[in-house]
Amino acid sequence: MHPATATTAQALFDEHRNTLDRALQAITQRDYWSAYSESLKQYPPEAVSEAKVNFDALLNRHFTLAGTAAVGRAGAEQSPYGFALGVSYDQYDADQLMTRQQQALPAWRDAGAEARVGVCLEALQRLNALSPTMAHAVMHTSGQAYMMAFQAGGPHAQDRGLEAVAYAWRAMSEVPGSACWAKPQGKQPALQLDKRWHIVPRGISLVIACSTFPTWNTYPGLFASLATGNPVLVKAHPGAILPVAMSVKVLQDVLEEAGFDPALVSLVVDTVEAPVSQVLALDARVKLVDFTGSSQFGNWLEANARQARVFTEKAGINSVIIDSVADIRATAKNLAFSLSLYSGQMCTTTQAIYIPRDGIRSGEQHLSFDEVAATLADAVQTLLADNARACQFIGAIQSQATAERIAACRALGTVVLDSESREHPDFAGARIHTPLLLKVDAADRAAFSEERFGPISFLIATDNTAHSLQVAAEVIAEKGAMTLGFYSTDEAMLERAEQLAIDCAVALSVNFDSSVYVNQSAAFSDFHATGGNPAANACITDSAFVAQRFVTVQSRRHAQIEGAGDAQL
Amino acid sequence: MHPATATTAQALFDEHRNTLDRALQAITQRDYWSAYSESLKQYPPEAVSEAKVNFDALLNRHFTLAGTAAVGRAGAEQSPYGFALGVSYDQYDADQLMTRQQQALPAWRDAGAEARVGVCLEALQRLNALSPTMAHAVMHTSGQAYMMAFQAGGPHAQDRGLEAVAYAWRAMSEVPGSACWAKPQGKQPALQLDKRWHIVPRGISLVIACSTFPTWNTYPGLFASLATGNPVLVKAHPGAILPVAMSVKVLQDVLEEAGFDPALVSLVVDTVEAPVSQVLALDARVKLVDFTGSSQFGNWLEANARQARVFTEKAGINSVIIDSVADIRATAKNLAFSLSLYSGQMCTTTQAIYIPRDGIRSGEQHLSFDEVAATLADAVQTLLADNARACQFIGAIQSQATAERIAACRALGTVVLDSESREHPDFAGARIHTPLLLKVDAADRAAFSEERFGPISFLIATDNTAHSLQVAAEVIAEKGAMTLGFYSTDEAMLERAEQLAIDCAVALSVNFDSSVYVNQSAAFSDFHATGGNPAANACITDSAFVAQRFVTVQSRRHAQIEGAGDAQL
Repeated sequence: MHPATATTAQALFDEHRNTLDRALQAITQRDYWSAYSESLKQYPPEAVSEAKVNFDALLNRHFTLAGTAAVGRAGAEQSPYGFALGVSYDQYDADQLMTRQQQALPAWRDAGAEARVGVCLEALQRLNALSPTMAHAVMHTSGQAYMMAFQAGGPHAQDRGLEAVAYAWRAMSEVPGSACWAKPQGKQPALQLDKRWHIVPRGISLVIACSTFPTWNTYPGLFASLATGNPVLVKAHPGAILPVAMSVKVLQDVLEEAGFDPALVSLVVDTVEAPVSQVLALDARVKLVDFTGSSQFGNWLEANARQARVFTEKAGINSVIIDSVADIRATAKNLAFSLSLYSGQMCTTTQAIYIPRDGIRSGEQHLSFDEVAATLADAVQTLLADNARACQFIGAIQSQATAERIAACRALGTVVLDSESREHPDFAGARIHTPLLLKVDAADRAAFSEERFGPISFLIATDNTAHSLQVAAEVIAEKGAMTLGFYSTDEAMLERAEQLAIDCAVALSVNFDSSVYVNQSAAFSDFHATGGNPAANACITDSAFVAQRFVTVQSRRHAQIEGAGDAQL
Repeated sequence: MHPATATTAQALFDEHRNTLDRALQAITQRDYWSAYSESLKQYPPEAVSEAKVNFDALLNRHFTLAGTAAVGRAGAEQSPYGFALGVSYDQYDADQLMTRQQQALPAWRDAGAEARVGVCLEALQRLNALSPTMAHAVMHTSGQAYMMAFQAGGPHAQDRGLEAVAYAWRAMSEVPGSACWAKPQGKQPALQLDKRWHIVPRGISLVIACSTFPTWNTYPGLFASLATGNPVLVKAHPGAILPVAMSVKVLQDVLEEAGFDPALVSLVVDTVEAPVSQVLALDARVKLVDFTGSSQFGNWLEANARQARVFTEKAGINSVIIDSVADIRATAKNLAFSLSLYSGQMCTTTQAIYIPRDGIRSGEQHLSFDEVAATLADAVQTLLADNARACQFIGAIQSQATAERIAACRALGTVVLDSESREHPDFAGARIHTPLLLKVDAADRAAFSEERFGPISFLIATDNTAHSLQVAAEVIAEKGAMTLGFYSTDEAMLERAEQLAIDCAVALSVNFDSSVYVNQSAAFSDFHATGGNPAANACITDSAFVAQRFVTVQSRRHAQIEGAGDAQL
């Protein structure tokens, strides 16, 4: 590292110091804060107007990044809106790439926390500026509608990245750089040692991205590892490479400008036919693995990537329990939003809705189970009645497998609301399907206690709310959950739900019947996953998520004090 | 939990708040601080004078603790000073005991961080008062001499426990208990959520104690787990049960007085013939495992206790590299202290001493390899010349296996200083052996690159200091190390050593030639182990050591704001 490097990176740190300080305040208070606007109006008009052109300019060509000598090319992304992206990416020899990263590690490590955090903060700011264009890349890989792709793939993802940087900074800051240790020796002069402490990264960090949230779920691990000194291999999902590649490009640019090896953050591309995650995850040089995706592969990573610290977010059975409500229409409208948004392809979308088979109380009324079901179905239909608006809300189904799952799941219960195929007004070949609602009995546990990823939900008839609580607790204990919603007008019941949430270590949302939704997770406030049930072994983002990514190495020297007393332990 | 409980525990928290605050300052600054005096003079005279009587009163009888119905008795501790302790302990049915602990968990969890920390701080204070008596128990299980058993087994261990509590408190404090989240909506009223966060323990914590430091190595995991809400099973080493049982007793007393189930901290006793650690470590209810001991079992735990977070401190090849010294006599005196203290049975004791085969510079002199070796041997002999003083310094060999290892290792190199058997002035049957120093060549890696636990060290002839650095780095990368000492009068060499320490993630002590020693680790200042090399997968104590012991569960409720705007992501 040249002296100029530290200067440049230090300048970046100083430039973004206010943002960092505000983020540190936010993670302490966890009240509302966001660094990056979720309103397109707050972005330069030309950035918005040129976004589509900029995105189109990336299509049907090779995407160039820093790495080692290319040993092949890959890339076969298909927009869920019905066209091929036509982008290709270099593939590298993994051994060569990791060798380069290991060679780059000491300079990155020794640059210190401020320099590393400065680079991360600058990259986040540039990613933010890129958001309108990034939105197209996220849209045409994940299938999210444009506005969601912009918000969740842009500012919300950047907020999560910044949150991870803030946690990393705080964890590193809690280790003093040096101290003078002076141990009194009675009448003798004190024993004195000068001590220094170094933040030392664990090694190469492998971040395995997912297809539905290629930036939101990737940034926390990526930035947490990078800020704490670890080179990062970002393995993109074959179906959602472009948003990851664009993110890596921004990081490489900033790294290079600050005098570091841009390959400290490298893109790894593979294909469905020849996946590379397993081999990479077992490499002795890989010391950290972040993964979002299936329970099967997440569990495999936890079981096999023994040389690494593994952070997984997997599948779960997100649940809602309805005991009683103030107003079923408000409740149904709220739930319909959650079930429909991005066609239920969020890791926080509700799959299981427990309702007493004898019905519930809504305000002063009694409603039968079927009335509750019909009200919910109505709410979904109303929300999605206008096709053009619906398409801007439910987006497209990311994978063909999910589309096929909708059809296959129809047989699992009584159809309360059938899934419809829709035509997108702008994209003829878009893969668009509205939610499927099924009615089942609590005894049909096999139907609803497996994750059915996509717009597939179950209304589950239980004996009563106590039974709902019991079944939900059992299912979550076994299969995990990211979210639990609970509706009751009875405070004693709410206390039982709070207890269930604590016992199952699942995030609880109570009586959501307005404009906030169970599937929403706000950076700097909501902890995303607890890490305490089978849906995820880590929380994004908390202290445990960052503290394991580095170790502290100390050195100490002592000064001989004349006349020091006898040695003591 | 009765309301009275929280009151009692809260009073304990308030009572010890100043101690906690000072500890929090200490872990931030990591300069010198200690909560518990290491001078016997600071303890009540009667506590000191009655310590032996109190210890004797524990011998040859049954030690009673809270637990479940006894299913057997065990206990066959032999003092390394040559007599049987004659203490028996109850054995419990593991399933019943864990069931009881799980039943006790919610009250302990829900009491909150202040109540839990209050109980921990009170227990530490009572343990401190017990130190003079505890010293006898530590002495007659570990073999440490009385003064070391008092300091390391008493105040130093308590300091480490307090340090863990302080880290746990800080980690829990960093999670706010509640917040009002208010998201601006332009001209519309803000969206508002009331959020609460709960600290939720992972589950049952298994702490597997060792025979050489039954309190010092046990307290960090024990207190870190307990403070964060986890019930703790303390599995004592069959050779060192009494200090653990006495510690558990203190904790049970405080828990019970505060209204909690005393079995929240329970003793598990097994025998060499029928060990139980493996079965316990694989139990689905055990979510945390702390272990100090052999690499073989530590690695087994890391590989197999998959349902748990595993924190291990294992074997390593602690090393010293001598490049040049200011004064070989001062250096040798310092090293002789480290090699001799507690007969080299500390996890921080140096085993491998690398010296250029062509010798070194000491001040203005040149010394041959053999002159360096002879000076070191002389220093050990001088230190141990007076037998009565020597016995108070080297203590006894904890296990017969270690005593036999000394004899077996003589064949591994050229004997520079032979180990002697000594007679203890007070204990006829004490197992006392002075250090064995062997000379080997760097090529004899098999000799010195396996841990030879006990007073066994190797003077290793290398081509030059660069070669010493290279071999040491390779051995530490492969086998790990807790400590590295380095001696040079050349600042450029010291910089290389600093780099080696960082690369190998090992704690470095530079030019120790006075009254501080490479094998010392001071609570609140020295991080014990880094967790970054094979000697240990965790540091005692840092943020990562505590942050993984709990998860955070949130609940949120929203208030409908009249006229709220359209939903946004």
